[in-house]
Amino acid sequence: MDSKVVVLRYGHRTGRDDRVTTHCCLVARAFGANKIIIIGKEDKGIKESVQKVCNTWGGPFSVEFASSWQEELKRLKQQGFIAVHLTMYGKPIQDIIDNVRKHKKVVVIIGSKKVEIGVYRESDYNVAITKQPHSEIAALAVFLDWYFNGKELNKRFSGAKIILTEKDEKPKKRK
Amino acid sequence: MDSKVVVLRYGHRTGRDDRVTTHCCLVARAFGANKIIIIGKEDKGIKESVQKVCNTWGGPFSVEFASSWQEELKRLKQQGFIAVHLTMYGKPIQDIIDNVRKHKKVVVIIGSKKVEIGVYRESDYNVAITKQPHSEIAALAVFLDWYFNGKELNKRFSGAKIILTEKDEKPKKRK
Repeated sequence: MDSKVVVLRYGHRTGRDDRVTTHCCLVARAFGANKIIIIGKEDKGIKESVQKVCNTWGGPFSVEFASSWQEELKRLKQQGFIAVHLTMYGKPIQDIIDNVRKHKKVVVIIGSKKVEIGVYRESDYNVAITKQPHSEIAALAVFLDWYFNGKELNKRFSGAKIILTEKDEKPKKRK
Repeated sequence: MDSKVVVLRYGHRTGRDDRVTTHCCLVARAFGANKIIIIGKEDKGIKESVQKVCNTWGGPFSVEFASSWQEELKRLKQQGFIAVHLTMYGKPIQDIIDNVRKHKKVVVIIGSKKVEIGVYRESDYNVAITKQPHSEIAALAVFLDWYFNGKELNKRFSGAKIILTEKDEKPKKRK
């Protein structure tokens, strides 16, 4: 996994989206992305809860907030990233993944319901994870799983205080 | 896709979990499950919003609420279902999926943070979608994608008022 993947979370609404955005962060980390940039007002609660997971389970993974998706995307493109926007209006992942995999620096854009037309236009690929409405959390996970071809499932994180092994399969009795 | 998959959503807390549970419902539907049973207090809002999606995008898919996971699981097992519990303490999906795929009737159990030990014990398979903490929404999507081997990505729904095709790839200008 020598690829570099950044997730761009479009349209985060403070309060309403906190839990969904936190799920997006954890999925980004667990499925092999290096960073998530959240477009919206800085939210210390989200940063802290993801940092807590990194402290226990390892990293590196970072969360940033930014105000303009256009500026972030421009900056990433200048660094050689290609933009993949996950949308049910896109081309089916199963038809397009071979092309996407050729790129080693990918920014994955995930949104909420109303995404500006500019996001579609500025993306190199608009990719559909099914042509049905569901969840940006699910779309992100399935995209990364396809992109990394399942290799991310075994990813080792550095600095982890807990690493689950075969011995941990049966949970201890909890009170 | 002649399999029958039911999702059992364990530990839904009214209010706090509404959005996450709604994402679980939509993911279950979009990735080929037939039904979701939510353990918790009946919530008409969730039922209605999923029904609305089915009315527009097709079905069949149903949402039920129940109070006891033990009873639901017992009933499903009597009907020949095997139980797959998604947990980071489980066996890696990549090692176990071939065995799971032999079963054509599967109940997939997804939980929140604190899952009773009984859920692990009553499950035929405890399956890990990465050994990292992330999201039950993501775990469900990736599990179903592996179980159906990507075939669910093309699933046709009956009675759909909208079916997205290649022509729909470029969104119209929205005001």
